[in-house]
Amino acid sequence: MQKMQERMELLLSQAEARHIDIAWVKEQLKQQRIETPSWGYADSGTRFKVFAQPGAAVTLSDKLRDAAHVHRMTGIAPSVALHIPWDLVDDWSAVAQEAAALGLTIGAINPNLFQDDAYKMGSLTHPDAKVREKALAHIVECVAVMRATGSRDLSLWLADGINYPGADDLRARRRRLEESLSRIYGLLPPDKRLLIEYKFFEPAFYATDIPDWGMALLLCQKLGDRAKVLVDLGHHAQGVNIEQIVATLLDEGRLGGFHFNNRKYADDDLTTGSINPYELFLIYCELVSGELDPQVEYDVAFMIDQSHNVKPKVEAMIQSVIAIQRAYAKSLLVDRKTLVEAQKVGDIIAAEECLAAAFNTDVEPLLAQVRMEMGVPTDPLLAHRQSGYQQQIETARAGKRGASSLG
Amino acid sequence: MQKMQERMELLLSQAEARHIDIAWVKEQLKQQRIETPSWGYADSGTRFKVFAQPGAAVTLSDKLRDAAHVHRMTGIAPSVALHIPWDLVDDWSAVAQEAAALGLTIGAINPNLFQDDAYKMGSLTHPDAKVREKALAHIVECVAVMRATGSRDLSLWLADGINYPGADDLRARRRRLEESLSRIYGLLPPDKRLLIEYKFFEPAFYATDIPDWGMALLLCQKLGDRAKVLVDLGHHAQGVNIEQIVATLLDEGRLGGFHFNNRKYADDDLTTGSINPYELFLIYCELVSGELDPQVEYDVAFMIDQSHNVKPKVEAMIQSVIAIQRAYAKSLLVDRKTLVEAQKVGDIIAAEECLAAAFNTDVEPLLAQVRMEMGVPTDPLLAHRQSGYQQQIETARAGKRGASSLG
Amino acid sequence: MQKMQERMELLLSQAEARHIDIAWVKEQLKQQRIETPSWGYADSGTRFKVFAQPGAAVTLSDKLRDAAHVHRMTGIAPSVALHIPWDLVDDWSAVAQEAAALGLTIGAINPNLFQDDAYKMGSLTHPDAKVREKALAHIVECVAVMRATGSRDLSLWLADGINYPGADDLRARRRRLEESLSRIYGLLPPDKRLLIEYKFFEPAFYATDIPDWGMALLLCQKLGDRAKVLVDLGHHAQGVNIEQIVATLLDEGRLGGFHFNNRKYADDDLTTGSINPYELFLIYCELVSGELDPQVEYDVAFMIDQSHNVKPKVEAMIQSVIAIQRAYAKSLLVDRKTLVEAQKVGDIIAAEECLAAAFNTDVEPLLAQVRMEMGVPTDPLLAHRQSGYQQQIETARAGKRGASSLG
Amino acid sequence: MQKMQERMELLLSQAEARHIDIAWVKEQLKQQRIETPSWGYADSGTRFKVFAQPGAAVTLSDKLRDAAHVHRMTGIAPSVALHIPWDLVDDWSAVAQEAAALGLTIGAINPNLFQDDAYKMGSLTHPDAKVREKALAHIVECVAVMRATGSRDLSLWLADGINYPGADDLRARRRRLEESLSRIYGLLPPDKRLLIEYKFFEPAFYATDIPDWGMALLLCQKLGDRAKVLVDLGHHAQGVNIEQIVATLLDEGRLGGFHFNNRKYADDDLTTGSINPYELFLIYCELVSGELDPQVEYDVAFMIDQSHNVKPKVEAMIQSVIAIQRAYAKSLLVDRKTLVEAQKVGDIIAAEECLAAAFNTDVEPLLAQVRMEMGVPTDPLLAHRQSGYQQQIETARAGKRGASSLG
Repeated sequence: MQKMQERMELLLSQAEARHIDIAWVKEQLKQQRIETPSWGYADSGTRFKVFAQPGAAVTLSDKLRDAAHVHRMTGIAPSVALHIPWDLVDDWSAVAQEAAALGLTIGAINPNLFQDDAYKMGSLTHPDAKVREKALAHIVECVAVMRATGSRDLSLWLADGINYPGADDLRARRRRLEESLSRIYGLLPPDKRLLIEYKFFEPAFYATDIPDWGMALLLCQKLGDRAKVLVDLGHHAQGVNIEQIVATLLDEGRLGGFHFNNRKYADDDLTTGSINPYELFLIYCELVSGELDPQVEYDVAFMIDQSHNVKPKVEAMIQSVIAIQRAYAKSLLVDRKTLVEAQKVGDIIAAEECLAAAFNTDVEPLLAQVRMEMGVPTDPLLAHRQSGYQQQIETARAGKRGASSLG
Repeated sequence: MQKMQERMELLLSQAEARHIDIAWVKEQLKQQRIETPSWGYADSGTRFKVFAQPGAAVTLSDKLRDAAHVHRMTGIAPSVALHIPWDLVDDWSAVAQEAAALGLTIGAINPNLFQDDAYKMGSLTHPDAKVREKALAHIVECVAVMRATGSRDLSLWLADGINYPGADDLRARRRRLEESLSRIYGLLPPDKRLLIEYKFFEPAFYATDIPDWGMALLLCQKLGDRAKVLVDLGHHAQGVNIEQIVATLLDEGRLGGFHFNNRKYADDDLTTGSINPYELFLIYCELVSGELDPQVEYDVAFMIDQSHNVKPKVEAMIQSVIAIQRAYAKSLLVDRKTLVEAQKVGDIIAAEECLAAAFNTDVEPLLAQVRMEMGVPTDPLLAHRQSGYQQQIETARAGKRGASSLG
Repeated sequence: MQKMQERMELLLSQAEARHIDIAWVKEQLKQQRIETPSWGYADSGTRFKVFAQPGAAVTLSDKLRDAAHVHRMTGIAPSVALHIPWDLVDDWSAVAQEAAALGLTIGAINPNLFQDDAYKMGSLTHPDAKVREKALAHIVECVAVMRATGSRDLSLWLADGINYPGADDLRARRRRLEESLSRIYGLLPPDKRLLIEYKFFEPAFYATDIPDWGMALLLCQKLGDRAKVLVDLGHHAQGVNIEQIVATLLDEGRLGGFHFNNRKYADDDLTTGSINPYELFLIYCELVSGELDPQVEYDVAFMIDQSHNVKPKVEAMIQSVIAIQRAYAKSLLVDRKTLVEAQKVGDIIAAEECLAAAFNTDVEPLLAQVRMEMGVPTDPLLAHRQSGYQQQIETARAGKRGASSLG
Repeated sequence: MQKMQERMELLLSQAEARHIDIAWVKEQLKQQRIETPSWGYADSGTRFKVFAQPGAAVTLSDKLRDAAHVHRMTGIAPSVALHIPWDLVDDWSAVAQEAAALGLTIGAINPNLFQDDAYKMGSLTHPDAKVREKALAHIVECVAVMRATGSRDLSLWLADGINYPGADDLRARRRRLEESLSRIYGLLPPDKRLLIEYKFFEPAFYATDIPDWGMALLLCQKLGDRAKVLVDLGHHAQGVNIEQIVATLLDEGRLGGFHFNNRKYADDDLTTGSINPYELFLIYCELVSGELDPQVEYDVAFMIDQSHNVKPKVEAMIQSVIAIQRAYAKSLLVDRKTLVEAQKVGDIIAAEECLAAAFNTDVEPLLAQVRMEMGVPTDPLLAHRQSGYQQQIETARAGKRGASSLG
């Protein structure tokens, strides 16, 4: 504890040298919010195998309790994204009450337009109008859940696409998609947003109907102001500069939210920051830049979307929330004054060192301090391990097995 | 038919101009053999969804019948690869008899070392010796199946790997893998071969224990002459030159076999030749080159390994066999005499045009002729559609649903 | 010749079976136009080495003569793209006259905003307004060349970007780019178009200012109707579905043109169709679909942009023009009636086979017939080799060496 | 300074908690050696443009002085790699004396087998024996330089490969390569090593003769014990796990050395650690693991190979040396005891956190301490900026321009 105090003092002097108000940094960190996904607490896997985990959540109540525990440990994860129909229940007001009692709110509602035999050739883009109607009916159901739970964002990921050249007409699919989305947008109450996610490939292996940010943005433009793009960190081709996409969408007023995770190869859905933490930091640098710019309309939903196939689920979620918090903290410690000056004169190395210095800063004392002031454990992972929560759910949920979600 | 005759005559004159003996080409085509996988007839999918197909095979008998039908339609698919335990039965001699009655032989045996909860951290590379023993016991079982069915090749694909840095010691895993493989090799009767498959990623998302041909070859070298590398066309990083790997393994006497399929992004498992037919042709050009070279020990097992998630399974298999046959036919029509001469003088364009001319040849009349002489339908896809086989299995298998295989 | 006639008759019967009017196909092929680039006739290379070729063009006159020869051999390459200042001369009306005398017109004008020491941190996006003004002044010069030569398209490729995180502010660069482009658009006479090219990477290695079609389209939208996107086949991340981008841009009325080439790894600038001819065919299938759709505003400039580092330049250009012609011919032979019907009922395999059948058609007799009717050699490559043109330029240009262009 | 002392004390307590002897860490850091390349001080660029930098080295003397300055600033860069013929001089003993007077030794000798018109179709793999002899004669010359300068390693990068299918016979090229390498190996005195570098692509764009570690290792195996593989961090396909290759080569006793740099897309040659510092750290974790394992024969040459196209060259080199030093320091601070225990019980998260904790450690005080004890500036970049060296060379070298090297 003494040590932590000393480290915090060191940090204060570093911040001062970088023209940074540490009180502001702490305030930002206290206001950070990361939404966790209900399906991240349930069993998941690859096409080859779903490894069953002891204590994995089965019911929506299980998932809410896990999410509440993650929030208790971290203090910055107060909302839960739901997936319909995985989380489908009869009484949504009861769910809202249960969540509230646990200190949670209901975040984004995620429709499922990929797990029905009807959707083999697409949902909103399907050649057959009856299938498109079926998909739209599901969206109507989801909007009802949004109203009942106070959710603001309809978070739409489409698996739609084709596996082989010729399987459908690419331009016809676009037109069906535009029409379907227009109807969905029309269904949304004026205080709700539509988040459109893109994905490079999988499960479609030849052409995905919304393959990149450009297509998602183009669709949003045709819908209206409350249609925004959602960036999933695992949904790009190798090498794509994600921070540049983030900067662009911020500039266009179209960055709606994130699905955080990390990848080395494809949509690996690993825990955020586990493969390339510097990339996560650079994304946050763009976010902070946008947040500080009065010309940018900044309203971003931060959500995690991972598959904890081999890591203990609750623990992996806590680890992820912390990794995101760490990236945000580091990005807040960039000496932006020096950075801008270096950029102005083309001093590439000095500019880069501003980022490197912030990234290499030991922010653990800062995070510990912030957590202490927020009344949550200073070391969330350790606190979780000591809490006995994992043993508790393993006992309580023993013998229960639900339908797995992804996979 | 008249037309076909005319086209065949044209082809003869083209072949003559290219210094090619068309009788030899026909003989080669008649001797071509493509093995189909039992699991390719059963329902499969992605981690997101397994689309159930009417008529999909459920039992091993179903699969054998489907394979026999594919062979009836094409004449060049007389063997079936099995997957244990997906195809596990009690009485293997009955299976061998059933296959023989259908005109089939049993091809490669594929162990399953990835669908048991014990294998979360690997099978042959697992840190715990007990898990490795469990995996080896499964191999013993597979070798028994090989003996009982007359199968020659043990075809080993390992899903082993780790998802996160630090999850295990990379060098320790190698040593465990070498030891496990050495024991497997020791189990094999002297007339059997071990085929070692590599895969770039999936389901392991950080490090796969056998990620590329180099690792597979290194392992084979340590085992002995009957350990060979198996090349799956979907298991490489983007851009990797597969035909060069084929040429190298042929040169080293280590090309054991293929898993044919095609991909645009990752291990998409699409039908062979559907995305890049020229690449398939170039691979066959290397194979023909190896076959013609007396210094090359040429003993290659050609197998299909695809996931027909959206295509009708039996039809997709026939389409794939034809695509491979077409690629082989085109590669046999390369004017190798002119090619070698052009290479000798560095005439890149003339050399390339030898390949392009062969690739652009209309080989349909040649294939029709060969099929006629083999006593199989000249248009296998059409014959299949007219055979009523699909309707027949849909009726016969209605209501039956088995455990899906992949996914 | 007799043979060719027979093959042509066979093709006629194939076309009829596919509901295709071969007269229409021939008419389309006669109207096809491929623009060749002046710089494709000059020495080029990689960063490691520019291999000097005997006979490589040095002066603009050399390049025009080479282009005229390619047009004489093929009949479908009547225009030449210029690059300023590589092709800079004093008297543009003399150039226009020389071109006209050779049967050529001047195609797109390509500014050079990457070969001046001032552009180390960008040109149109440079932090320093003086550098941006310098770049704009160059554009003014290029527009003057357009007026003087009758060129319609200003074809803008920007190398602008940064190599390291932090080197410049990404959003500031966007705003500078928008402002610069707006001024450029304002400079264009009302009958001229601005084609905006995108590129995934190189020479910028961290962030390229126009990295993909989405960014190019977004910029075009802000400029006006005569701003269009230019697609270079080598400028995408691995796996990107280019035909889908083509379809999308056609649908949006924003497909301005192509830079044809092929690649296996990055922007390899190989000859068109040399690595994946099926992809080229699929792109042409989308183009034909757009051309046939009255709702699509179809006005596409087809240009080659390759680096013939190891192939003889004139010959490589003829080979490329033929490869593109072949792809177009095959795409015109798709049975669209059957394709649409198969798509309607979700018959994926039948739909795919429509494409495969067209792709596997022997179109050489058709092309020979079309060429004969156009009065050009039936075998352009052979005619070129027999023409003595290469020997002629090697002699005429011996000892002349110019500044290389790329590289 | 006071602060630095405090931070060092904190680090000591962290190290203790991680079971690490900080004296050992400091000793390791003092023994670290990074070789800089002579060509890294000269102008370089892409195929599009070489940006001339004021003060860029022109003569070998310039390069040696720059290298000596980098060593003065960092204390761990006492050797220089040379490139023949870029660095070719008449009197090598004079060079050795000049280097010694500057406190430098001569490191690896890098032959150039790619910048002669003869090598268009390859050097050691060329179809024409005369070209192969020419290449071998150059190697003889390089070996003479090795003897004269006391260099130990012949560092061989081959640009050899082909750009188009069919351009040469792939297996014939392999056999020529094996024969050429065998002769080169025979030329080496018994105390010298041959380092064989691989590269995925560029400048060959269809097939590179040594495309990956597997091919390089296979060649080494056939040569003998003193043939080792050299790993360039930019020479892999996207996603390839480099640390696994490092671990494998260490295990096989075949890791000869590194060419350090970083990349986002292809062989971008950016400064080491600038794009993915965590990957660099993970590579060092494998190196430390190998160094600590008595069963591993550990003899690795660490060299930088970058193109400082836009960064000031000397400064970029200092920045790179520091980045590598930082990665090594962090990897030495991994709690290996806890890591191994976590791996043993499959505690993936605890294992990963051992790595994350080390990576997130503030090692700047440790590095400052080590530098102070070594008698070099505690902040090398700052010291360089204050030294006036850049201004000095800009003045001294004004007006001098040499042949650029790469590009």
